[in-house]
Amino acid sequence: MVHINPSNTKDKEIQNLGLSNKDITRGERLLNRNGSFNSRRVGLPLFETFNFYHYLVRISWTKFIFIVAVGYVVLNLFFAVIYYLMGVDTSLTGTITETQFDKFLEAFFFSAQSFTTVGYGRISPVGFWGSMIAAFESLIGLLALALATGLLYGRFSRPAAKVLFSEKALIAPFNDMTAFQFRIANKNRSEIIDAEVRVMMSMLEIKNGTPYRKFYDLLLEYDKINFFSLVWTVNHPIDKQSPLYSLTEEDLHKGQAEFIILLQGFDDTFSQNIHSRSSYRYDEIIWGSKFANIFGFDEDRRTTVSLDRISDVEN
Amino acid sequence: MVHINPSNTKDKEIQNLGLSNKDITRGERLLNRNGSFNSRRVGLPLFETFNFYHYLVRISWTKFIFIVAVGYVVLNLFFAVIYYLMGVDTSLTGTITETQFDKFLEAFFFSAQSFTTVGYGRISPVGFWGSMIAAFESLIGLLALALATGLLYGRFSRPAAKVLFSEKALIAPFNDMTAFQFRIANKNRSEIIDAEVRVMMSMLEIKNGTPYRKFYDLLLEYDKINFFSLVWTVNHPIDKQSPLYSLTEEDLHKGQAEFIILLQGFDDTFSQNIHSRSSYRYDEIIWGSKFANIFGFDEDRRTTVSLDRISDVEN
Amino acid sequence: MVHINPSNTKDKEIQNLGLSNKDITRGERLLNRNGSFNSRRVGLPLFETFNFYHYLVRISWTKFIFIVAVGYVVLNLFFAVIYYLMGVDTSLTGTITETQFDKFLEAFFFSAQSFTTVGYGRISPVGFWGSMIAAFESLIGLLALALATGLLYGRFSRPAAKVLFSEKALIAPFNDMTAFQFRIANKNRSEIIDAEVRVMMSMLEIKNGTPYRKFYDLLLEYDKINFFSLVWTVNHPIDKQSPLYSLTEEDLHKGQAEFIILLQGFDDTFSQNIHSRSSYRYDEIIWGSKFANIFGFDEDRRTTVSLDRISDVEN
Amino acid sequence: MVHINPSNTKDKEIQNLGLSNKDITRGERLLNRNGSFNSRRVGLPLFETFNFYHYLVRISWTKFIFIVAVGYVVLNLFFAVIYYLMGVDTSLTGTITETQFDKFLEAFFFSAQSFTTVGYGRISPVGFWGSMIAAFESLIGLLALALATGLLYGRFSRPAAKVLFSEKALIAPFNDMTAFQFRIANKNRSEIIDAEVRVMMSMLEIKNGTPYRKFYDLLLEYDKINFFSLVWTVNHPIDKQSPLYSLTEEDLHKGQAEFIILLQGFDDTFSQNIHSRSSYRYDEIIWGSKFANIFGFDEDRRTTVSLDRISDVEN
Repeated sequence: MVHINPSNTKDKEIQNLGLSNKDITRGERLLNRNGSFNSRRVGLPLFETFNFYHYLVRISWTKFIFIVAVGYVVLNLFFAVIYYLMGVDTSLTGTITETQFDKFLEAFFFSAQSFTTVGYGRISPVGFWGSMIAAFESLIGLLALALATGLLYGRFSRPAAKVLFSEKALIAPFNDMTAFQFRIANKNRSEIIDAEVRVMMSMLEIKNGTPYRKFYDLLLEYDKINFFSLVWTVNHPIDKQSPLYSLTEEDLHKGQAEFIILLQGFDDTFSQNIHSRSSYRYDEIIWGSKFANIFGFDEDRRTTVSLDRISDVEN
Repeated sequence: MVHINPSNTKDKEIQNLGLSNKDITRGERLLNRNGSFNSRRVGLPLFETFNFYHYLVRISWTKFIFIVAVGYVVLNLFFAVIYYLMGVDTSLTGTITETQFDKFLEAFFFSAQSFTTVGYGRISPVGFWGSMIAAFESLIGLLALALATGLLYGRFSRPAAKVLFSEKALIAPFNDMTAFQFRIANKNRSEIIDAEVRVMMSMLEIKNGTPYRKFYDLLLEYDKINFFSLVWTVNHPIDKQSPLYSLTEEDLHKGQAEFIILLQGFDDTFSQNIHSRSSYRYDEIIWGSKFANIFGFDEDRRTTVSLDRISDVEN
Repeated sequence: MVHINPSNTKDKEIQNLGLSNKDITRGERLLNRNGSFNSRRVGLPLFETFNFYHYLVRISWTKFIFIVAVGYVVLNLFFAVIYYLMGVDTSLTGTITETQFDKFLEAFFFSAQSFTTVGYGRISPVGFWGSMIAAFESLIGLLALALATGLLYGRFSRPAAKVLFSEKALIAPFNDMTAFQFRIANKNRSEIIDAEVRVMMSMLEIKNGTPYRKFYDLLLEYDKINFFSLVWTVNHPIDKQSPLYSLTEEDLHKGQAEFIILLQGFDDTFSQNIHSRSSYRYDEIIWGSKFANIFGFDEDRRTTVSLDRISDVEN
Repeated sequence: MVHINPSNTKDKEIQNLGLSNKDITRGERLLNRNGSFNSRRVGLPLFETFNFYHYLVRISWTKFIFIVAVGYVVLNLFFAVIYYLMGVDTSLTGTITETQFDKFLEAFFFSAQSFTTVGYGRISPVGFWGSMIAAFESLIGLLALALATGLLYGRFSRPAAKVLFSEKALIAPFNDMTAFQFRIANKNRSEIIDAEVRVMMSMLEIKNGTPYRKFYDLLLEYDKINFFSLVWTVNHPIDKQSPLYSLTEEDLHKGQAEFIILLQGFDDTFSQNIHSRSSYRYDEIIWGSKFANIFGFDEDRRTTVSLDRISDVEN
């Protein structure tokens, strides 16, 4: 379990995103709403920083299926060309062909039948080279399809922390004071165990005449809960110790304030650690409103939660 | 390793189940005996909160086998219809058919032979479209079966913390005082390493005239053991600091007391963290009895434990 | 990472093995040399405590291969009987048979060809029932073989903490005092990161006239090292705080002393936590000797360690 | 998550590499630049210390592919010999042969078709022994290929902490003092969460007239960051408490100083702990220079980092 360790000293956080603070002042937001980083690495050849597995696990299902299908066709075309060049009549037996194109097609379909090891056998290899190429095509097919099926299953069984963040954060009255609040929900039916949240605020400040970005940890009412089963309203009470104390909406705008949210926990179903990130910018904060109640009871007196209303606020 | 961190302040626990305490007073028990939550999420379309992997891992073996078999038949019917519509005589060769129904059957069985890549070859595809559909059916079959076999193996190798909870908890004399006790056993032959237990009590209380549910952590004699190999009697001594101090059976009934049990550890065989939960309600507590001894020795002087007698009590 | 947390209070350890201390006095050693527990669970039906996965992962390779081979033959015999009873001539085509036994053999080999999806096609199914059984046999074969291959790979890739314990522990001079020592070696070529050792001593003592087993934690000179790469001599200095202080060889014998060793760490190659256990009994301790030096240098001035001499002592 | 726990006492670290400090003085560097240990185990038979899985996961892709291909050919040659010795004409049907060599080739290709379960069926087994060997060859093929494909996918999906270390470490002015510095970059596009660095210095010292190697932990400005996304300059400020305080370049040379770097964290994409190690020797340190700035902004005002310039220094 990875513990978020909130440090007490505020300045210490400056390196927490692995970014130098030089020049960072001019940049756009650090984290996108979906939790991805707003940065780019340059100077190394693509293959050095690119991880194929990483790519294939992260792309959409449509892209993934497309890549598998195209890869399948391309590899079979490759082997079809080999059988065709060796001579379809000498390397394969049982083909039914009239034209040269028929021959290529039979070579292609024989290739597909070897690659998937379905091997109907109407067309089958003869002679040394035809049989040898077919023997290795089956091996290559098995290996290539193991990658495809492994990735397919890996994607399917990958823990997706479907954490829903409220669209806006609030700065609103809370008990006898004011608090910075946002609401998160666990969309999945599995429990997130030992969920921990950490909130960092980043603001432009002036030091020796030059603006630089400063990072603060915001102390939370609760930064850890045993089960994140349904909904969690995360609260940072704005007391005298809070870096937000006495700041106005305009101050946050001027400082281009950004609130970075880190969530982690252990997924009960997938037996794996999960992480989720998001960020609220100064223009994604509502002042003075409260979150609406979304708890209720059904006819069996079980607790219900309306996840579609997670961003609902009231005055 | 996920550590349960018992907090010192009692009130802090109110959010520990990710539930607001508003209106919670009217609800039924929070946790079912089998550890599942007694709540429901509403307001989002089904596919948003539903995780297919989660579902297929959790359902019974009977349901799982049924879904695999039905899926297999349905996919083959789908491809059989395609071959049938393309014309069995033009897209397939080697079929033995007299009636239209025979044709459909041969198409269905050819489909099954392609899907599983057994490809006997008595029936085999001819022509561009027949061969092409068959080539993709084999690919789809390999991918679909990879999901089925992956899930099968995942279910088979999934660490099931077969933790046995005693049917009732006890409030009974213990040393010179009284204790809240329950007994758990490790049914599996693998050791659970660094087992940790946490017990929370939840009771209705009156605050400003309105009832609300309060949560307390119960301090345990031991909350962690290095090996949970056989049986563990978990003890909460009811001393002056205990929220149970001086409460009677009737008080627990009135307060609709519920004791929530969280167990976690590391399974030696499966090399994975495991979690188990349960709950005892006020009406699942026996007052004044003690657990019966279930340890013994066999003829080889090895320690034995009678797991069937884990709930046995004596006066 | 599972942390072994040594508790300060000695008595607290009494439950650390999940064993009651009642009657434990009469028992044999608690832990066998190979780290398995010397206990047995009774009273539940076998299938309740038996985990098939656990069993198949732990048995020897010979047994595993045997079970896979026998299972393969039995399943094929089962399907062969079905094809035979349906009539080999009506459900299968292409069989070459003279006798009834030939028919059964052809049914058996056809079954094997369907089960593995090799499907040569010399023999192939005809008719509704023959084709249908064959279609499901291929599916069942794929599922069953997925279990076999999954287990095979799981066994192959399972982190085996090949930790070598010295045959005997020593109680020997160490610096200006005496120490309880044993030596462990990492046989694998992968590093064990953050290795932690915990040593518990268990001894019979008399309390109110009845003997009972008491457990002590032994404080170690180092209980954690960053890399357990080669050899580690674990030291418990016997100072005034040590429960071993002033005890003689005879005392340990009378108290049937047993030293329980727990080792854990993170395997760099397998990316998994590993655990190893062992135990030294009073009669497995050498008094007064020191471990021999087993470090040396090869011709390239690289450090070498002679693992075969790990138990070597000198006076 | 494995926590590096920096101990306060300097001498305590002597065992941290699982090495005795006797004679260690004469040795070469402890850790190679790539993080592997400069040591060797002797005295045990090879198969005791050799782990085949470990080997096959760590070798280069070229070697791995070579081993799979050679294993495939060798196993098929083995079965080909069996079919050939049984008599190709009696155990197989459908072979097209003129010479004895043709017979062996047909046996070889039939073997490959059984091993991969492609089973075209032009050649198929007949008779008891031919069919039986073929039935088991398919089973063995499925099991062997499961190892190959499992390893292939395991290698493909293995988290490779592509951490780039700057070629040299610096001892350079930092704020108002001097610091020991090096720079690391995360080449992968996945984030490393909760990255921790630990730096140990090892130097020869004289004690009672004999030189021995002493280990020091170096306190870092930051030893943990929440995200290691891009670049991290690790700083050990050389204050009065630092073991480097007042040491000169010559002192480090004389003491054959070596700086051992341990990095660990949690990979977001692979959901696994990752570890990386490296080491700087006294002759891999530049005195007096500073690292050049490698941060910039692209046309979309996103932060960019030039990873190719990670070792760049300026005066």
